[in-house]
Amino acid sequence: MSESSRPIGVAVLGMGNVGTEVVRILTQNAADLRARIGAPLVLRGVAVRDASRAREGVDPALLTDDPHSLVARDDVDMVVELIGGIEPARALIKTALESGKSVVTANKALIAAHSGELAKAAEDNRVDLYFEAAVAGAIPVIRPLTQSLAGDSVNRVAGIVNGTTNYILSEMDETGAGYGKVLAEAGRLGYAEADPTADVEGYDAASKAAILASIAFHSRVTASDVYREGITKITSKDLEAAKKFDCTVKLLAICERIQTADGEKISARVYPALVPLEHPLATVNGAFNAVAVEAENAGRLMFYGQGAGGAPTASAVLGDLVMAARNRVYHGRGPLESTYASLPIASIDEVPTRYYVSMKVADKPGVLQQVAGEFAARDVSIAAVRQEGAGTDARLIVVTHRASDRAQSETVAALEQMDSVIKVSSVLRLEGTND
Amino acid sequence: MSESSRPIGVAVLGMGNVGTEVVRILTQNAADLRARIGAPLVLRGVAVRDASRAREGVDPALLTDDPHSLVARDDVDMVVELIGGIEPARALIKTALESGKSVVTANKALIAAHSGELAKAAEDNRVDLYFEAAVAGAIPVIRPLTQSLAGDSVNRVAGIVNGTTNYILSEMDETGAGYGKVLAEAGRLGYAEADPTADVEGYDAASKAAILASIAFHSRVTASDVYREGITKITSKDLEAAKKFDCTVKLLAICERIQTADGEKISARVYPALVPLEHPLATVNGAFNAVAVEAENAGRLMFYGQGAGGAPTASAVLGDLVMAARNRVYHGRGPLESTYASLPIASIDEVPTRYYVSMKVADKPGVLQQVAGEFAARDVSIAAVRQEGAGTDARLIVVTHRASDRAQSETVAALEQMDSVIKVSSVLRLEGTND
Repeated sequence: MSESSRPIGVAVLGMGNVGTEVVRILTQNAADLRARIGAPLVLRGVAVRDASRAREGVDPALLTDDPHSLVARDDVDMVVELIGGIEPARALIKTALESGKSVVTANKALIAAHSGELAKAAEDNRVDLYFEAAVAGAIPVIRPLTQSLAGDSVNRVAGIVNGTTNYILSEMDETGAGYGKVLAEAGRLGYAEADPTADVEGYDAASKAAILASIAFHSRVTASDVYREGITKITSKDLEAAKKFDCTVKLLAICERIQTADGEKISARVYPALVPLEHPLATVNGAFNAVAVEAENAGRLMFYGQGAGGAPTASAVLGDLVMAARNRVYHGRGPLESTYASLPIASIDEVPTRYYVSMKVADKPGVLQQVAGEFAARDVSIAAVRQEGAGTDARLIVVTHRASDRAQSETVAALEQMDSVIKVSSVLRLEGTND
Repeated sequence: MSESSRPIGVAVLGMGNVGTEVVRILTQNAADLRARIGAPLVLRGVAVRDASRAREGVDPALLTDDPHSLVARDDVDMVVELIGGIEPARALIKTALESGKSVVTANKALIAAHSGELAKAAEDNRVDLYFEAAVAGAIPVIRPLTQSLAGDSVNRVAGIVNGTTNYILSEMDETGAGYGKVLAEAGRLGYAEADPTADVEGYDAASKAAILASIAFHSRVTASDVYREGITKITSKDLEAAKKFDCTVKLLAICERIQTADGEKISARVYPALVPLEHPLATVNGAFNAVAVEAENAGRLMFYGQGAGGAPTASAVLGDLVMAARNRVYHGRGPLESTYASLPIASIDEVPTRYYVSMKVADKPGVLQQVAGEFAARDVSIAAVRQEGAGTDARLIVVTHRASDRAQSETVAALEQMDSVIKVSSVLRLEGTND
């Protein structure tokens, strides 16, 4: 590898868990990074909220509370954005790209909302915009989908892409504890943020689903295109019941091509679902992430690893940074945004799904027949039924075969109106099966 | 993505399983590939042994039995080499690179033996040499290691990278049948070649280990640097005994950094090993492949999928082809060979390993004490002992803790000389444990 003498200046915006690790690795591994890139990476500055507070391992002279001036500096060639959120991250990244600086970001919310605008700025200015760290932390997902599968046709991407919710569901499954108790515990252990809404309501996973769907299907998909349900209504009873069907419950991000009456569409959705215990995603526990990909020729692939945390996420950021830096040294460019297919987005109603419905029913003859009638009336065929308890505790659990989500949800709405159904206590979808 | 009008000419050398699928996908997915690349890919010719034999879906005019003339054609911009073996593949690839044509190959034996020479030709002529398909078929491994982990430090790569041997070992484990019977069955099913030597003796896995080690550790490692043992001596008794230790037997390719008295070295080795059932690699069965990577910051990653077969391997070839074609359209370049670290190769003697030793012993008091004495004399500490049978069928099974492979193998040699040890019937290493 030939060596270019000119150093490459890097600005890091944000110094939370990930930023701290990025700065540490940039410093500690400088010699390796230089050898791999063909030029030294030099940290020009770190933008933080409070520049007066000292940070271990960082020259105080590098700290600034003015990210805009840092990005604008002539000796900054590449910007690492780790502030998160939409503004000022969007404006800073756009300014960087428009002044010919490559950008590496871990900001899923921003990429899921504004990828088109930012990708265009990168393309117009012939620089790179990389965001491997935005989905599934250290696990290479973006690059395999964009590059390794560039000659294949992806049919489905299904993943566990949020560590907080996976930790909560795994703990509920293992200990039998309720959602509230496990969430509190997750907060104490640092697995859940003070305001866990983005995680537990599925917004974080929905952003990642949008990014995955965009890349997998060469179409622009934004977070608002993703159907989303969180895990806040999951009870320990649901996990118990799942076990009786040899399943566990996982918050899944699913992106797939579906065939509709109007032609091929993209479904992107996030919800807690029953997953059979023998499915590879069922064994992904705790804060780990995994993404399963089904492609026309490659078949089924699976990627597994740490989906969050400072060092793992920093590893993904550094990988992008080295590639962007090499492109600068060798006048190359990474892949551009590819949206040529422009497939339309399917509504959740159109998506073929399977349902698991648990309801409290009147303990009298004929109830099962009436319930089965509601499913049959909408052409939803029943795969399994379980009757439990008796008297005031009589319950009926129904698992359906595949049918349109509209037919399934309309059936549930009808069940809720039935006299003999006291309460529909739980409705979950079932994923990872072939029938 | 802007569109370049000039088509990109592709020559395919070899039309076996993979070549046939590459030609099919190039033809069937032409519109998608064109949109992703920004220029059409045009198949200029396919080199085969017998050009007079018709091939379904291929214009007979494209067939030629002269690969050298095909590679030399002015309208060929990129070459896909799927002939396999060293010559004429090496000469053809070198000619292509030296005439400014990018090359995609699935040829592990060639890359593992001649990567330096070929990488230099690619670099000198500013073209790409891609070989994702050479390791683990459809599973993206080369690209994640080269690019996604470009800013991290890989400590270990351990994988099941040969489908034939994994099929044989899985079948032996499941059915209890012997090696010979299962090998014959594998041949009938198309999982083993007529001459299975390259697979069952570990040569194929050793080539892949060399490629993985080169990339992971930024050093040049060739197949001859890889310590290698095949699976031909594995018996159904070994698999039975493995179960008693909650293990199974897998042919592993292991690449790791080890610390020796002379400093950091690379160990690259292939052998059948006991793997604990709870280890993720233990559950990879049949013709599937999986590669586990441990990196300083990313932690443990795992990649899983189909490691062989026409369509999966073609998917990897096409991914490389699209990236190389895009580089041609956008005047970019893929990553170059990176060997700056130039770490020395450790001999197997230096590598810390764990041993499983099964021996037939005399059924008399004091034997265990004598056997234990031989281990202790070489500072090899014993983790578990099992005594089985009695009389002429008395057996002793010892599992050791980690010690240098030299100490372990010297202990085994000493045991073989002992009067009270009738026969050392099986010696396997144990991998995938922390102690």
